[in-house]
Amino acid sequence: MAASFATRPLRRSRRSRAPESRTRFDRRLSEILAHATQVFCEKGYEGASMRDLSRASGVSLSGLYYYFESKERLLYLIQKHTFTTIVDRLKSRLEAVTDPEERIRIFVLNHLEYFLHNQSGMKVLSHEDEVLKNGAGAEIAAIKRAYYRICRGLLDNLKSALGSDFNSRTAVMSLFGMINWIYTWYNPRTDGTAEELAQRMSDIFLNGITGGAKLRRHHTV
Amino acid sequence: MAASFATRPLRRSRRSRAPESRTRFDRRLSEILAHATQVFCEKGYEGASMRDLSRASGVSLSGLYYYFESKERLLYLIQKHTFTTIVDRLKSRLEAVTDPEERIRIFVLNHLEYFLHNQSGMKVLSHEDEVLKNGAGAEIAAIKRAYYRICRGLLDNLKSALGSDFNSRTAVMSLFGMINWIYTWYNPRTDGTAEELAQRMSDIFLNGITGGAKLRRHHTV
Repeated sequence: MAASFATRPLRRSRRSRAPESRTRFDRRLSEILAHATQVFCEKGYEGASMRDLSRASGVSLSGLYYYFESKERLLYLIQKHTFTTIVDRLKSRLEAVTDPEERIRIFVLNHLEYFLHNQSGMKVLSHEDEVLKNGAGAEIAAIKRAYYRICRGLLDNLKSALGSDFNSRTAVMSLFGMINWIYTWYNPRTDGTAEELAQRMSDIFLNGITGGAKLRRHHTV
Repeated sequence: MAASFATRPLRRSRRSRAPESRTRFDRRLSEILAHATQVFCEKGYEGASMRDLSRASGVSLSGLYYYFESKERLLYLIQKHTFTTIVDRLKSRLEAVTDPEERIRIFVLNHLEYFLHNQSGMKVLSHEDEVLKNGAGAEIAAIKRAYYRICRGLLDNLKSALGSDFNSRTAVMSLFGMINWIYTWYNPRTDGTAEELAQRMSDIFLNGITGGAKLRRHHTV
């Protein structure tokens, strides 16, 4: 698959590509990103060389540089792709739902589902969040802030709906901790599907911040 | 401080030291560990060289190798020191307390307190938990398992005391997520002291797993 174009590099400039070759380009790019994610996950960002990335993806070194310029650019693209995908999915899932508690459950499910299907990527994102500097770093930080703000908004809505009085910042950060930490322990045989885990974690978290007030329990936790 | 012995290396073998020089040795060792922790935190374990560690600690390269043999040995000592300290403090704090809920509050406080006073170390531990192999890796894994088991035992005690029915594994791991993730966001001006944060997090977590049943609320969250 990705190996095939190591011997057949695209010659046209990236700006002048026709729509169909842009699609092919995007597909190749996303294959390389997947391999790079795996390598960063295994060796760490610092420990991984462009040579390692070339070996893993089956793309020649010069091919890699053609697409990405640098290792940092690869990390930027991985981070951007991941956060944009999570945020877009979340927004579209939230569109049809108004119940404040259900909206938090959707946030948890959306996050866990993406995490569990992309575990290497999430580990890379968790560990390498300070590597990118300047423009690229600022851009990723902005997407992450937007994601944080969505979550914070969901909690504040629940808070006013229930007239609760919890510390929103501690609550949001506790929730992010719960759902981000799973890359260190999740085991599908013990811990069930993303849906099951999301339900148990949402129950703990929602009970936690509301003290059980008016909480529709879907299951025992 | 640590710099002084770069020019005055100990000549005696490590096995034959008298008690007072052993103490001096331990003090120096712990100074070097603190510097090494800082460097690993800034550059990552893979990215840090023995030369970086030498520069940061003011200890000559040969002095460093005299004490540690390798970078891996340093990481092992940092991890061992950290986990042993946390577990020992926890055990001694739990000795006098029998109330199951209070014991969980102590667990959270003990963990956060250590984390917040040793943030660089905790970041190193969170990121570099797969570097150590064989004997050293197994030894650290055993200390971590023991720590996990203490926490799991505290939850199971609360569970039987209240007759609750939550999933212990999800609960323990959610709690570790909440309290480990703080290295990414904690800000003393916004988030208060370890005690204040521990109280808010314990409230969220204990409400979360008990649904507020028989829970003595210390504060609003």
